[in-house]
Amino acid sequence: MAFKVGLLGLGTVGVGTVEILQNPAQRHPLLQDVVIHKVGVRSLDKSRSITVPTDSLTTDLESIVTDPDIDIVVEVIGGLEPARSLMLKAIEHGKHVVTANKAAIARFGDEIFTAAAEAGVYVLLEAAVGGGIPVIEPLKQSLCANRLNTVIGIINGTTNYILTRMQLEGGDFADILADAQTLGYAEADPTADIDGLDAADKIAILAALSFGGRIKLPDVHCEGIRHVSAVEIAYAEKLGFVIKLLAIARRASETTDQLEVRVHPTLVPKSHPLASVNDVYNAILIEGDPIGQVMFFGRGAGAGPTASAVVSDILNIAALLTIGHGEAKQVDGKPLLDPLLACSHQHYCAIAPMADLVTRFYARFLTKDYPGVIGKLGTCFGDHDVSLESVVQAGMRDGFAEIVVVTHDVREGNFRTALEEIQALPTIATVASVLRVL
Amino acid sequence: MAFKVGLLGLGTVGVGTVEILQNPAQRHPLLQDVVIHKVGVRSLDKSRSITVPTDSLTTDLESIVTDPDIDIVVEVIGGLEPARSLMLKAIEHGKHVVTANKAAIARFGDEIFTAAAEAGVYVLLEAAVGGGIPVIEPLKQSLCANRLNTVIGIINGTTNYILTRMQLEGGDFADILADAQTLGYAEADPTADIDGLDAADKIAILAALSFGGRIKLPDVHCEGIRHVSAVEIAYAEKLGFVIKLLAIARRASETTDQLEVRVHPTLVPKSHPLASVNDVYNAILIEGDPIGQVMFFGRGAGAGPTASAVVSDILNIAALLTIGHGEAKQVDGKPLLDPLLACSHQHYCAIAPMADLVTRFYARFLTKDYPGVIGKLGTCFGDHDVSLESVVQAGMRDGFAEIVVVTHDVREGNFRTALEEIQALPTIATVASVLRVL
Repeated sequence: MAFKVGLLGLGTVGVGTVEILQNPAQRHPLLQDVVIHKVGVRSLDKSRSITVPTDSLTTDLESIVTDPDIDIVVEVIGGLEPARSLMLKAIEHGKHVVTANKAAIARFGDEIFTAAAEAGVYVLLEAAVGGGIPVIEPLKQSLCANRLNTVIGIINGTTNYILTRMQLEGGDFADILADAQTLGYAEADPTADIDGLDAADKIAILAALSFGGRIKLPDVHCEGIRHVSAVEIAYAEKLGFVIKLLAIARRASETTDQLEVRVHPTLVPKSHPLASVNDVYNAILIEGDPIGQVMFFGRGAGAGPTASAVVSDILNIAALLTIGHGEAKQVDGKPLLDPLLACSHQHYCAIAPMADLVTRFYARFLTKDYPGVIGKLGTCFGDHDVSLESVVQAGMRDGFAEIVVVTHDVREGNFRTALEEIQALPTIATVASVLRVL
Repeated sequence: MAFKVGLLGLGTVGVGTVEILQNPAQRHPLLQDVVIHKVGVRSLDKSRSITVPTDSLTTDLESIVTDPDIDIVVEVIGGLEPARSLMLKAIEHGKHVVTANKAAIARFGDEIFTAAAEAGVYVLLEAAVGGGIPVIEPLKQSLCANRLNTVIGIINGTTNYILTRMQLEGGDFADILADAQTLGYAEADPTADIDGLDAADKIAILAALSFGGRIKLPDVHCEGIRHVSAVEIAYAEKLGFVIKLLAIARRASETTDQLEVRVHPTLVPKSHPLASVNDVYNAILIEGDPIGQVMFFGRGAGAGPTASAVVSDILNIAALLTIGHGEAKQVDGKPLLDPLLACSHQHYCAIAPMADLVTRFYARFLTKDYPGVIGKLGTCFGDHDVSLESVVQAGMRDGFAEIVVVTHDVREGNFRTALEEIQALPTIATVASVLRVL
């Protein structure tokens, strides 16, 4: 049997995908049944590190998604449009879709999966989160017996690289970002990574899979790492923590159906499995009943890992086509989909307001008037049920006494109210930093 | 649709499995289609923490595997027989099989998977390696695009618990084993764990999946942890290592098809991702092209994690039955199997002799005559192409000078020959320890 692939895009991931498909030796034998039928590119003349038959290249991407010979459309052009429209048209024409496009899936997953369910085709997206790390398929298939409670990920390589270097070198954010840009670890416009937007897209996708409901992207609370300074990293280190940009999705409590879905820099205890995930590596920690904790770790980006995920998705579809996808069972004349592999959530998850979050906090204050200030801080916090784990007068900075506070688990709303009062105290010069603690 | 399960065994894992199946809320909706039809037990009267309808209990296990109503047989009795015969009979009667039985699969996988391929049924075994950690299905499905090179696992919880405590407490093997037995972390007869046999079963299974060929269990080189002393752990620590029982399967070289498959205590650099996998946790590190390194981490045993894997396998089969397993495509009147999920290797992998292994070594010698002994050691090693990374005269022990050697990568055969000559030197009192270094 031969399964024909139409590839949209021949950038880094597209080239990585072609390299695997053209070199099936010592990989799964099913690869030999997969044929690259068409490749959609922006320019026919660009010189490339791989060779694709000239007659398979086209700049007419629409002709690929409507080509009756093509079984599987692989979307690796990225971005929102025309990626979204091309995927929808491919689905409409009965093609299965493999995509690495977290931005489009996080925003249009609803529309895309609904269309796919109606058409009886699969939309697989292992490459959209964590690069090559198997996490989407394990969530769908290997962990499906569990009631999942928590998903915590380091799922943006750029920010993890920057934070790791800040930690090791004691350097400042801006300098290391600039260096990361020079080295190609950060984009010229780093906003999507640095401000946590990329991680927000990915955690929205993971949350939808883990908790069986759709997530509205604007509901995801998102803070980036611009305000993480070398001072915070040094204090975190002294207190036994490292700072990581975590993407977190969890059930808000046993008694509600609400979820927390959030991205923010977080103090992680050094003994925690995520604390030693450094550089561009990603990791996703999942907690469920009865499995307990499992963690998946690997390179979260790059041509090779991402193409590994793309081609695995292609092979998973090829396997289902081999055994006769849709030939035996149909609904309204459309193939019935594997209930574990297909995504077709009918409802949106309720997201708990950040004010209701219960978490520990780290805060650093610059104060004018040391004697008595700890008492005033303690009183303000205590008035709002914020109990403190430690208060340390850490030293002097810029002529101010520097006080570092770590709280116990507290309600975020209470903490913020107390903080507003503290900010208004004449003795407080600056609330220099507020970070959550895992 | 209702899928009927026949459960063989109601021990820890069996009870865990029933608990999930009886509590489908907030798990995958497909669970609601799975029904426990029969449960095979040794005694009908035993009091149990769960309630199973009395008329589904039977001591006649054979009646379950031949019951025409049953779709999926779940084997969680463990051991070689009657597990093997019951699985084969279930397959013969057209039932899919889910098993947690690493011992039976490692020994009889050949016979069992051949029978399953002929009968057109699945034999799934996620629970056999790493408890609940998804690794079998990711190897089959999510990593299938890769040319895998190396699988390294900490896949025995008992030995990892003992080694972790030896490292933290500086205690001796025998004392901590005794304590682990009291606490239930080690069996009354700890042989299978302590001597590496359990890990050997598991790495044989992982190697077969990773490299697409069967493994003969006697080909797996297997050393346990009985000879790992507190002294070795302390020296390893000083040198920047921890000692872990590693199970390793890898391509012996780029130019041959031979594999290395081995289990032995190993010095692991503290910076390595496996070094911080402690206590009863398991982890499996996989290296492939083009994915690079990925690691899977979690609890490797226990009712909950293992039952998570068992029920996920049940649901994966239920999903394939939902979409009409075998109704559309058949071969010789038998259902065609998903080429990624089915195991049907036709050949045995060639295993490289241990003498050809290239690795680093750690060795500790007690010597009678310090002046000149380092020269003699160096000469013996040098004569056999064993180049040394470090030689340290570490101190005195029992009236002997203690010398610790770490080699560069060397051929094991050469190292052993040099070691024999060294052992015969009059100046050498004892070769106190030899361990491999990752």
